[in-house]
Amino acid sequence: MATVNAPRGMRDILPADKARRERVLTVIRERYLAHGFDEIETPALEEYSRLHSGMGGDNEKLAYNVLRRGMDAEAIREGADDAAALSDLGLRYDLTVPLARFFASNRGQLPGVFRAIQIGPVWRAERPQKGRYRQFVQCDIDIMGDDSSRAEAELMVASLDAVDALGLDGASVRINDRRVLDWMLDAFGFTADERPGVLITIDKLDKIGPDGIVRELRERDATASAVDAFETFLRRPQTMEFNPFGERQIRKALPGNAPDEIVDHLVGIGEAVAAGRGIEGDIPLVFDPFLVRGMGYYTGTIFELAHPSVPYSLGGGGRYDGMIGRFLGQQVPAVGFSLGFERLVDLVDLGADADAQAVVLVHDADVPVAELVAHKAALIRSGSRVRLERRVKNFKALLERSAADGYTAFATVSAGAEVGALELKPLT
Amino acid sequence: MATVNAPRGMRDILPADKARRERVLTVIRERYLAHGFDEIETPALEEYSRLHSGMGGDNEKLAYNVLRRGMDAEAIREGADDAAALSDLGLRYDLTVPLARFFASNRGQLPGVFRAIQIGPVWRAERPQKGRYRQFVQCDIDIMGDDSSRAEAELMVASLDAVDALGLDGASVRINDRRVLDWMLDAFGFTADERPGVLITIDKLDKIGPDGIVRELRERDATASAVDAFETFLRRPQTMEFNPFGERQIRKALPGNAPDEIVDHLVGIGEAVAAGRGIEGDIPLVFDPFLVRGMGYYTGTIFELAHPSVPYSLGGGGRYDGMIGRFLGQQVPAVGFSLGFERLVDLVDLGADADAQAVVLVHDADVPVAELVAHKAALIRSGSRVRLERRVKNFKALLERSAADGYTAFATVSAGAEVGALELKPLT
Repeated sequence: MATVNAPRGMRDILPADKARRERVLTVIRERYLAHGFDEIETPALEEYSRLHSGMGGDNEKLAYNVLRRGMDAEAIREGADDAAALSDLGLRYDLTVPLARFFASNRGQLPGVFRAIQIGPVWRAERPQKGRYRQFVQCDIDIMGDDSSRAEAELMVASLDAVDALGLDGASVRINDRRVLDWMLDAFGFTADERPGVLITIDKLDKIGPDGIVRELRERDATASAVDAFETFLRRPQTMEFNPFGERQIRKALPGNAPDEIVDHLVGIGEAVAAGRGIEGDIPLVFDPFLVRGMGYYTGTIFELAHPSVPYSLGGGGRYDGMIGRFLGQQVPAVGFSLGFERLVDLVDLGADADAQAVVLVHDADVPVAELVAHKAALIRSGSRVRLERRVKNFKALLERSAADGYTAFATVSAGAEVGALELKPLT
Repeated sequence: MATVNAPRGMRDILPADKARRERVLTVIRERYLAHGFDEIETPALEEYSRLHSGMGGDNEKLAYNVLRRGMDAEAIREGADDAAALSDLGLRYDLTVPLARFFASNRGQLPGVFRAIQIGPVWRAERPQKGRYRQFVQCDIDIMGDDSSRAEAELMVASLDAVDALGLDGASVRINDRRVLDWMLDAFGFTADERPGVLITIDKLDKIGPDGIVRELRERDATASAVDAFETFLRRPQTMEFNPFGERQIRKALPGNAPDEIVDHLVGIGEAVAAGRGIEGDIPLVFDPFLVRGMGYYTGTIFELAHPSVPYSLGGGGRYDGMIGRFLGQQVPAVGFSLGFERLVDLVDLGADADAQAVVLVHDADVPVAELVAHKAALIRSGSRVRLERRVKNFKALLERSAADGYTAFATVSAGAEVGALELKPLT
């Protein structure tokens, strides 16, 4: 018989992996709830028109679309040229579009300032590649209804606390503001038309360096004087001195006099994060005027969570004050953060609960079923986790496999043994 | 602007509901893990051909099918007559087909006797009606690789323990065996062709009573002498005397001499469940020779979990020794149980963790952001869950809403208040 597998690009999650994922989820959930966030859930399916309204960026092309029910062949032929005729629903490709829709649907039942955490799978029909799956879990945390720097600060303090609790102390936040980028590109002399393309280039700074940036901007045929001004700025030594965080450093890192409103907002976030972390000295924020982040819907602060042990970010987000209004017809300020759950699962190992005893009962073939079940029940009542295993020839392999599955002790069971009196031996 | 809602027949889950669902999930997961079950996860999507191979029964017609990616209008027109040409994947409508596929895909990495728990959403395009949703959570627990009564007993003992832990003490198991039904219908004289239809009728006994059953069987034009024999049996007083559980009662409830093998299997399950529950007297099992259960794949024991407080079952399952073989090409005995998660969530209320303090900080508009965040952080460090709320005119309504959201205390915060010295008042 042919091999039977999960659909291409998707995966089964086996017990050890599943247990690790659940442990990480429990810690994340517990930390954000402590910080006053409320957990919500939305359906995996959303309406086709909502998933393809432009808010999902490039992800819209990766959506799995669901065939309308009850179409006959004729209706399908008639609708062949019109995706929306064939498909009324699709699987969500992120949690942002569903959250905006959720907020618009349920606003009357939510607090004025709504702090939400949503954890769930999303689906993208990407080309399969190592470590990237077509179904994966996203973990989004958002604050809606607060336009002050308090929203960013609460989000960052809670997120730093969550990664601390996962054993990743020493994380920090790279921060910028879309309005800084707009103002800066305007100051250099890029036209409004050029700016989206210029941002795409700047987003590659980590990969291609200042030389690569300048080369690509010239290839883009961007306004030459603007590229010159940008190059001069890029090559100043102080542009790349990112620490310590504060007004002086932000102003020093920018070309000329950035608007007070934006700088004050950033400084306010820094002060509040320091207060929330109980820090006297260095603020765990790094101002990075070249941080771009891809999505088109950001309108203000943008940020990423970084940890010294890894070269990639552990999550990122920003302010998107315009999006909720597209559903609700009324502007609502919002700031969100997506924690990189799949990366965190690979990175951290919380280990099983050290206090819990897990016992394998290895029994002879002739032990009556009722006796076995009674032995098992007695140990469960005393707080253990218990698995029954029939004795096999390769006893050593059985014990090794049990230890690998997280079991900590074993006992052998013969017919007639007294319930509650089994001798437990440690599994090493 | 038009109302924006979740797709028809689907629902958003708001914070209080989500918290209650997670509490129930945590208890269920924790109990089955203690009984040696391993949690697994499979993708929401499975291949179209697997979802439509006949194992899903009527649910196959309710599947959401996913449109193949990258089809142009011409390919769609060409494939219009062939569902499998248009659709390569579908959303799972149960967890049984995915589990059988999972076991076939991963058998080499699993223990010889594999005890699995899988919890996750399934999708069915049913006509929407009150309390029934097109996306809902299933919770399936299965044991593969054990053909003895131990498998059924472990499953039942763990499930009774789980509903105990949810506060539903006093649950019991209604039990029958598909082989009993086959033998019984054969003994009455129904032909092999008639039996599937007769089973569908018997399944309605709770709803239409013995008179309804007999009437429907006559309308079906089933062999008249068989219907007569069945009617005589149905109207015996002792047929409906279901207690107490044991060999004598099982034999008394059946017409004539049932095969020893089947009766012994049932009696063995009862003894093992009693041992596992630490019970000396009444076994929490009820033999019901009219229990049918709908799915075609059952081959042996079938059972349902009942609780005196509700007229419907809290879950059900049975032995399906043939199904895994259809994927694996090698027979593997299996017995499974589906716990009615959505019903349990409506039925039980575990309440929030009584030890956890949850504090609302009501602040004046002029308190600096950094001060607010510092007050919040200090309380979180001391173990509280904390939400910030700006003071509003209707202070009483704010406190009531906070209490409804599970908060237990509040404090008011003015500018300059000392961090760590807020006076907490109980929220009633």
